[in-house]
Amino acid sequence: MSLKERDKKHLWHPLTQHQLHPESVAIIKAEACTLHDEDGNTYIDAIASWYTCMYGHCNSYITSRVYKQMTTLDQVVFSSLTHEPAIKLSETLIDILPNNQEKIFFSDNGSTSVEVGIKMALQYHFNHNEKRNVLIAFEDGFHGDTFGAMSVSGLSVYNGPFEDFFIEVKRIPTPNGTNHNDILEQLKSISKDNTIAAFVYEPLVQGAAAMKMHNTEGLDSILEFCKSQNIITVADEVMTGFGKTGKHFASLHLNNQPDIICLSKALTVGLLPMAITSCSQNIYDAFLSKDITKGFFHGHTYSANPLACTAALAGIELLTSNEIQNNISRITSSHKAFGERIKAHSKVESVRQLGIIFALDLNIKMERYGNLRDQLFKFFMDNGLFLRPLGNTIYILAPYVITDSELEKIYSTIEAALDTF
Amino acid sequence: MSLKERDKKHLWHPLTQHQLHPESVAIIKAEACTLHDEDGNTYIDAIASWYTCMYGHCNSYITSRVYKQMTTLDQVVFSSLTHEPAIKLSETLIDILPNNQEKIFFSDNGSTSVEVGIKMALQYHFNHNEKRNVLIAFEDGFHGDTFGAMSVSGLSVYNGPFEDFFIEVKRIPTPNGTNHNDILEQLKSISKDNTIAAFVYEPLVQGAAAMKMHNTEGLDSILEFCKSQNIITVADEVMTGFGKTGKHFASLHLNNQPDIICLSKALTVGLLPMAITSCSQNIYDAFLSKDITKGFFHGHTYSANPLACTAALAGIELLTSNEIQNNISRITSSHKAFGERIKAHSKVESVRQLGIIFALDLNIKMERYGNLRDQLFKFFMDNGLFLRPLGNTIYILAPYVITDSELEKIYSTIEAALDTF
Repeated sequence: MSLKERDKKHLWHPLTQHQLHPESVAIIKAEACTLHDEDGNTYIDAIASWYTCMYGHCNSYITSRVYKQMTTLDQVVFSSLTHEPAIKLSETLIDILPNNQEKIFFSDNGSTSVEVGIKMALQYHFNHNEKRNVLIAFEDGFHGDTFGAMSVSGLSVYNGPFEDFFIEVKRIPTPNGTNHNDILEQLKSISKDNTIAAFVYEPLVQGAAAMKMHNTEGLDSILEFCKSQNIITVADEVMTGFGKTGKHFASLHLNNQPDIICLSKALTVGLLPMAITSCSQNIYDAFLSKDITKGFFHGHTYSANPLACTAALAGIELLTSNEIQNNISRITSSHKAFGERIKAHSKVESVRQLGIIFALDLNIKMERYGNLRDQLFKFFMDNGLFLRPLGNTIYILAPYVITDSELEKIYSTIEAALDTF
Repeated sequence: MSLKERDKKHLWHPLTQHQLHPESVAIIKAEACTLHDEDGNTYIDAIASWYTCMYGHCNSYITSRVYKQMTTLDQVVFSSLTHEPAIKLSETLIDILPNNQEKIFFSDNGSTSVEVGIKMALQYHFNHNEKRNVLIAFEDGFHGDTFGAMSVSGLSVYNGPFEDFFIEVKRIPTPNGTNHNDILEQLKSISKDNTIAAFVYEPLVQGAAAMKMHNTEGLDSILEFCKSQNIITVADEVMTGFGKTGKHFASLHLNNQPDIICLSKALTVGLLPMAITSCSQNIYDAFLSKDITKGFFHGHTYSANPLACTAALAGIELLTSNEIQNNISRITSSHKAFGERIKAHSKVESVRQLGIIFALDLNIKMERYGNLRDQLFKFFMDNGLFLRPLGNTIYILAPYVITDSELEKIYSTIEAALDTF
């Protein structure tokens, strides 16, 4: 029986209405930017398997080091014990994170990194004997699928049945270059009527909101206001981190640095799951006490998994290499040229880009996971491209090792789609 | 500089008050049941690194297969794509899970497996147009550290600053053999006054509550009541799963099978993180519809990571082998003999055991993470044993590959501790 058939028997896939989408494509092999299915078809992984495998699939520079780790020290409890991969990773990461970041706390995925960020912010105030119980977040933000992370997410498609169970959150619009003053007025009014603990945000690019990009100065003025009110700022860089915006982290485009940063996805280079929540010394210090209960009683079993730390270390070495930095520049320029070429197309409403993240909106109405969107997805698959449109947005977020000819194939297939739909 | 010194600079450890516990022991190597630190000391891993590495550390039968997977297919998006390791794992797991389990949903750790279980239960009723918004859980249960998982946990040490933000939960005592009727009366009264969506429980052994064990018939009658009220039963087998209670799953000791089962920890044999939430066909069917929003919109980036699936498959092969089943019998008998030997000791209040899980309570008062408990932990470390007492409870949950002489060393060190404290 084919894998595709066997898949149907016992697997429940994420983000999938199985009655409408009973079949999955079975991938049997991946190398660099190419996925191979069981029928011999190949696909360019143009979204880097959800923005993770930025150095290509099954990269031997990474896998050989992880294998070595696997034969030496696979896993230990990270409470009362420690190990070199976690120590080295903390040193290496602090070197490239915004200057104010000092401490590294581990968990397993983007959702838990945000849960940790929210819990750190709430307990920061609690430990200072201040009751602050409301959060601020952007409209249409997405921060994960656990209850705390869902609370701050504004995309209702993911939250529908669960909204009665959330932490209280006030939402503000993203800055668009003309609404700074409105947003600041809203913030003042919200913080007058509520005790705000934290502001949780995706810096500059909202991934799940179809790569919606927002204004740097506007975000800076929001962060400045938060700092003036001792509202803890929590940057969710799960999608934007590790070079995608052209800098190592999106926060480095801004003047005001967050108190807390959430990292995952490309952190572990598409090999295995891990997440990190980093923070400033000021946050960490609020948990130091002779009183044990002021400590942070959060911990996942595989926290700081040595294999994942080793993968992350190899990834940062690659990220900071000249070769990958040159690749990031190359892809950025290439996308820019494509944007210029495509923006006048009659089906294109708008084009936007930051670093290697490129998105275009079609002027055709499509529901987020609707029928027309599904046809567009199928068109790409039929043409050897793994690209997942979000509603009427087509975006590219390819591995840094993608070749020029692969890029050209992505562009020309998108152009062909524009001419078809 | 030693690893121990470097550790202090940037690492924030889980479940740790760093002002009271500034130092961690740096582990540089692990093999089978032995941990090696940077100063040349060794420790028997008597809790299997938080109940995960049941087949021993760096087991080459497992690591060689994971390495092969890593060089073939490391990771793909598990929405619209699928792969053989996930398919095989679903088939293999359904074979050994309770008979009513039919579908497998992936996430990354125990907390998220419980979040998924809770969300499945809430949305099950929501999709049936029934508003049910309250959960039932055991006193002193522990189900994880994300907001949904914290809500059902009853151990207040972990929840203190966050309790205002929880889903509404009603708590019942664990059955002790004499309180069945009381519990059933409480359940009737709770379900008369509330719309109960689900009952979330650790079957037979509450791990974080210091291996508290409860009565099989009592739990069966609770489950029977829940089924009569269409209250979805969610068994958290994150700790108990994969052979530890003497059967593959603790639920197999019972007559009534849960609708939903949460798995993690030993699922991936101490190599890397992954979790699974399995469920019955009835649960799954409630999400099938032409209406896309009735689907389950939960998904983590590394869902069904092929490396983790491969590790899990190797683990189940080992679990179901004669060799490991014989080991489980051997350790169970060995613990039983030790229990007989130690229960009359003047410092021992009580002894309990299920399968390879052994616990004894000292008749010395100790706070969960208090000073005396810390001294006891240090005594074990100084004597080459990685054993973490929980308050005045000493428990053993060693890998299945532990040797008789290692077991004897654990027992004699515990006896030495009893004579010292």
